[in-house]
Amino acid sequence: MLLTSPLLTDLYQLTMLQGYLEQRMEEPAVFEFFVRKLPPERNFLVTAGLEQALDFLENLRFGPEELEWIAGSGLFSKDLVDYLETLRFTGDVHAIPEGTVVFPNEPILRVTAPLPQAQLVETRLINLLHFSTLVASKAARSVLAAPAKLLVDFGLRRAHGAEAGLLAARASYLAGFSGTATVLAGARFGIPVYGTMAHSFVQAHDDEPAAFEHFARSFPGNAVLLIDTYDTEAAARKVVALAPKLAAEGIAIKGVRLDSGDLAAHARKVRRILDQGGLSKTVIFASGNLDEYRLKALMDAGAPIDGFGVGTSLVTSGDAPSLDSVYKLMEYAGRPRRKRSEGKATWPGRKQVYRRYGADGRMREDLMTVEDDAPGGEGLVRPQMAGGRRLAPLRSLSEIRVRALQQYALLPADLRRLEAAPAYPVVISDALRQMAAEVDRMSA
Amino acid sequence: MLLTSPLLTDLYQLTMLQGYLEQRMEEPAVFEFFVRKLPPERNFLVTAGLEQALDFLENLRFGPEELEWIAGSGLFSKDLVDYLETLRFTGDVHAIPEGTVVFPNEPILRVTAPLPQAQLVETRLINLLHFSTLVASKAARSVLAAPAKLLVDFGLRRAHGAEAGLLAARASYLAGFSGTATVLAGARFGIPVYGTMAHSFVQAHDDEPAAFEHFARSFPGNAVLLIDTYDTEAAARKVVALAPKLAAEGIAIKGVRLDSGDLAAHARKVRRILDQGGLSKTVIFASGNLDEYRLKALMDAGAPIDGFGVGTSLVTSGDAPSLDSVYKLMEYAGRPRRKRSEGKATWPGRKQVYRRYGADGRMREDLMTVEDDAPGGEGLVRPQMAGGRRLAPLRSLSEIRVRALQQYALLPADLRRLEAAPAYPVVISDALRQMAAEVDRMSA
Repeated sequence: MLLTSPLLTDLYQLTMLQGYLEQRMEEPAVFEFFVRKLPPERNFLVTAGLEQALDFLENLRFGPEELEWIAGSGLFSKDLVDYLETLRFTGDVHAIPEGTVVFPNEPILRVTAPLPQAQLVETRLINLLHFSTLVASKAARSVLAAPAKLLVDFGLRRAHGAEAGLLAARASYLAGFSGTATVLAGARFGIPVYGTMAHSFVQAHDDEPAAFEHFARSFPGNAVLLIDTYDTEAAARKVVALAPKLAAEGIAIKGVRLDSGDLAAHARKVRRILDQGGLSKTVIFASGNLDEYRLKALMDAGAPIDGFGVGTSLVTSGDAPSLDSVYKLMEYAGRPRRKRSEGKATWPGRKQVYRRYGADGRMREDLMTVEDDAPGGEGLVRPQMAGGRRLAPLRSLSEIRVRALQQYALLPADLRRLEAAPAYPVVISDALRQMAAEVDRMSA
Repeated sequence: MLLTSPLLTDLYQLTMLQGYLEQRMEEPAVFEFFVRKLPPERNFLVTAGLEQALDFLENLRFGPEELEWIAGSGLFSKDLVDYLETLRFTGDVHAIPEGTVVFPNEPILRVTAPLPQAQLVETRLINLLHFSTLVASKAARSVLAAPAKLLVDFGLRRAHGAEAGLLAARASYLAGFSGTATVLAGARFGIPVYGTMAHSFVQAHDDEPAAFEHFARSFPGNAVLLIDTYDTEAAARKVVALAPKLAAEGIAIKGVRLDSGDLAAHARKVRRILDQGGLSKTVIFASGNLDEYRLKALMDAGAPIDGFGVGTSLVTSGDAPSLDSVYKLMEYAGRPRRKRSEGKATWPGRKQVYRRYGADGRMREDLMTVEDDAPGGEGLVRPQMAGGRRLAPLRSLSEIRVRALQQYALLPADLRRLEAAPAYPVVISDALRQMAAEVDRMSA
């Protein structure tokens, strides 16, 4: 259901591959994917995209069309084309499961494979893990801002392409959203799908009550009417006037949607009109340039709104549309490696993360150490794939979603707020510091 | 090459379709796609994505799998499923060609089709036109900031999914970039593809000169060496030391790449080292969190850099990751329509745009009017598709690119700057104002 061409990669991956093959550099390499630092607007990340990353690795292969392009490009040797023709991903993958709260520098995913394989998959692995983690981390903030409200992803139209729309529906759901408006996400991921009506439906009718009546008759079980096309409160009165006629036929007006203006003020007036008109069970749903900050303001104002559609800001992660995420070589041919570029130095080797909890049960600090350290407790990084095959069937999205919600409850109070908090402590173990010093010494 | 499922839509499109069919509302409808207002960081937009939009319309159809999901969802009638089974897009499309400078409220694309068809395509049309226009408009700023420099899209890894990466490569190229690192964009769109090497290539080798030598031997015609993995200037000296040995074999070191630290300072030092080492023809290429502001600063500083890789900020349009773009009903069954929601009112009817130039040859103002007004000159909105079929073969990307570059030259000087300028005047004609007043009167 996602795009699958192996040419979804940077040219330099193929270039380097040819170099590795010519030098017979096919020893095992270890790469880790992690986020170097949080955007100022985030206090934590929520992992997502592992499922798509494993799919990509399991199905990686070059078909005749792709091989033909590479051969015809004039950039590469016949040896490279021959190598690619039979290439399959045969490596191991370790990762922190989806729906886990994580922090900068923690290894979200680790690939262990012959160097050419591990190198080639870099671009698409980052592409998949980065975006889903970006959106899950953004979505978590709306979930924290408006707990117990119905939250629906409305973002497909302004997502960056269709794949982004689909992955955003999935990532926001696993991070705690209630569902999505995107039909294909419902069909393929089993996410609950929600929808109301658009302004065009009202405009195409010669009068608003006729539009409401037609819509309710078409969807007697799910009539949510959009009431801001012309005058919101006037439309709410039209809904009240229409209700008895529909009720006589057994049709209840399930809800109304507000999409413009001062949502809190409109919601209060509309709630009063509906209640006075005997429609106290009709819910109010709101949308229109919402994000977690507006949700919080509406909650703080006590606006009588039962659910929210969140679109553009969610699927583009509008206030922080990217994460400083990378996939770096940590070990080659049994020796730890480290990049020391200014401001971009990495911790070398295979790493593991242990989470420590305080007396109040909340997360207190993480310990990042070398893989074979065993400080006690269970590491967050777990085996996912061995020899190119998955080790376990995928977890259900609803299971991942429950796990994410449970974790938010364990966050320190200041990390749960929308404002930037002091960084959560990720302690680097002595063993890891020693390994870094050792690597520097050997390559000095 | 893009995702094609007709379920890439919002649930409410199907819901409304069923309503329209039940009411036999199948008269011609006119919808227009436009951007309501510019983000603060933009002075103009560059249209892109029309090609993909027309592809989508031409190939729209529901297959057995999609029909099965709709039938099985329990949300829809058998009549809707039957209708969708034979649905094809049979409408007309008018649009402003790709690579055109446009401004808020101008109709970038117009669909004229039976109401259910015109409604159904809303979500994916916005999704395609919004993103490509977003990226083309962002890319234009780098082109203006660093004229005559080699600009390469490096963004796939942090694009929002693979489709975004591909479309961003295309949109940035048509807006004036030199090429992309994304292989599939080269293979499918014919865009020039560029690439160098990654830090991992250097790190996987036991010493840096060996990595350089191996890379240059693998790619004798295109050796661009990444020199910031450990110490940039030390690496530049290693390149100089290596050059004579390679030169003796006929291999020239084409360039070096800087990816971290103070790029202007490193470039000056590296330029001096290369020149003193006899490598005055070896170019310097820079990357690393670049955007148009950094490009301008490097240009202003006179940094001796010959080309730039621009990644994340380009493909996510980082400072403005979405446009306030919409697709609105303008006419139904021969009658103009208008939405009057607070802050979201639209100009009704089928519209046309005429561009006026000043005595200096630069753009002076646009006139937006009703389609059948004829104030003289050629309208920007042109027929693209009739009865569901394209009217002309697609223009080549390089042709569109030339057209975009020509237009930047005609922009008023203050719109060419990166800083926000006073809005370019888009004058609403009397005829259009009268039509709006008429619509309001009839629906009052």
